[in-house]
Formats: sequence, C-alpha cells, structure tokens
Amino acid sequence: MTAKIEGRSRELLEQPNFCFVATLREDGTPHVTPVWVDADGDHVVLNSARGRAWPTNLERDPRVTLTIPNGENMYEYVTIRGRVAEMTEDGADAHIDALAKKYLGQDSYPFRTPDERRIVVRIAPEQVKLWGG
Amino acid sequence: MTAKIEGRSRELLEQPNFCFVATLREDGTPHVTPVWVDADGDHVVLNSARGRAWPTNLERDPRVTLTIPNGENMYEYVTIRGRVAEMTEDGADAHIDALAKKYLGQDSYPFRTPDERRIVVRIAPEQVKLWGG
Repeated sequence: MTAKIEGRSRELLEQPNFCFVATLREDGTPHVTPVWVDADGDHVVLNSARGRAWPTNLERDPRVTLTIPNGENMYEYVTIRGRVAEMTEDGADAHIDALAKKYLGQDSYPFRTPDERRIVVRIAPEQVKLWGG
Repeated sequence: MTAKIEGRSRELLEQPNFCFVATLREDGTPHVTPVWVDADGDHVVLNSARGRAWPTNLERDPRVTLTIPNGENMYEYVTIRGRVAEMTEDGADAHIDALAKKYLGQDSYPFRTPDERRIVVRIAPEQVKLWGG
C-alpha cells in the first residue's frame, strides 16, 4: 500500500514548513518532535543524526506518522502515515546543507557538531490526507 | 510521577499556540494532529468531540505526548509526556467557547455542529521539557 504526495500536499512539503514526526518509544508511548522536511520522488525525506530520539525509535519500529502544517495557517495541514524505506548516512551531509538553504537561506548547515553523524531518513507514504485550508 | 508546567513552558501554553497531540492508534501506530490547548492548574486541557480519532485513541490507551511550538519561532517548543487524567462532557461547551475566544477572538465557537458532543480532555504531565528558544 503506497500513496502519492501530490498537489497542495506536495506544496506544503516543498515550502519551508515544519514536520511533526510521531514515532514510538521503546516503552510503546508516542513521541513527537518538529523537524525540517523535504520531498524526493515518492518519499518524504527527513534528516537527523545518529543517536537522536526519533530516528532511534524508527530503527526499532519503522511505523511513523507525519503532520506538516502550513506555518502561515495552522488550520491547513497534511498528515502522512508511512514506514521507513531507508535510513542512510550516504548523502546526509549534502542533504542537511540543502535543508539549511531551504529553511535558513544558508549554503551550509550552521549547527553541525564535530562528532555527529548525519542520516537521511526516507519515508514511504501509505496514506496522505490534506486537512483544512 | 507528575511534573509541573512552569515559566516559559506555561507561557507557550497560555499563548494561542497549537498543540500537536501524539496518541496511539488501535493498530499501535502513532497518530499526531494539531489542536487548541489550554492550561488549568496542574493539567494540560484539550477539547474535542466524541468519536474523533485522537480522543478515541486516548479512551483505549491514555498515554500521550504533546508538542507545543511557539507559532512565531518553531525552533522553540515544549514537549509534555503524560496520561489522561479526565475526559468529560461536563463544562466542555463552555471550554470550547473559551478556546474560541483565545484563538479566534470570538465569544462563541463558530464550528459547532448540531450532533457533536464536546469533551474536555485533561492531561496529567509526567515530564515537561523546553527546547530551543
């Protein structure tokens, strides 16, 4: 079961809106945190660093729900249910720079720490729903 | 284990910011949706209607995480882990009117439908964490 991200839903991902990533903690409780977001072909593309809470949750359980609100009108949002398709360090540094350009207008991600290992997290959407607007 | 919502965290709840409510679906996947929010003594107070997805999830499993970002600076947010303390229809209509005043500047909630039964959902915080800012 896969779903496409099209039309206004895709626009919300392409604009510099935040994505609220809901994952499952080890004890089964839900976790939710805001991150930058991007779309790439059929996937939602997120970026994090090894050891952070939400990608660690996704290594254990790949089921995820994303809510991306229009930052200028929070009554409009897209909700995406899906699963992790890929988590990789390949290309992750270039990808966080691209996100820094999108969100901060900077060519290079300014918050990098010497020991962090960035990862790209690709989510395969299974259901896409647009609300409000 | 209970936690207090104080200082800047409480300000984020008192200002008209949105709250991203993460709950568990029946199949165990995480769900997340934006709602209005309010604080009342030691509880986070939300409002919904019987039959909506997230309060139905909470009737089944009371474990919840809330993320409330500063709408003017999404890099600042408070995350609250907790459990449902109470779900009741008592006072729920007056409470949604108070939220309409806070968020829309209107004395009466304008989106009420004839058949909906509003509910107040009180969350007891177990962990409160302020990020960014």
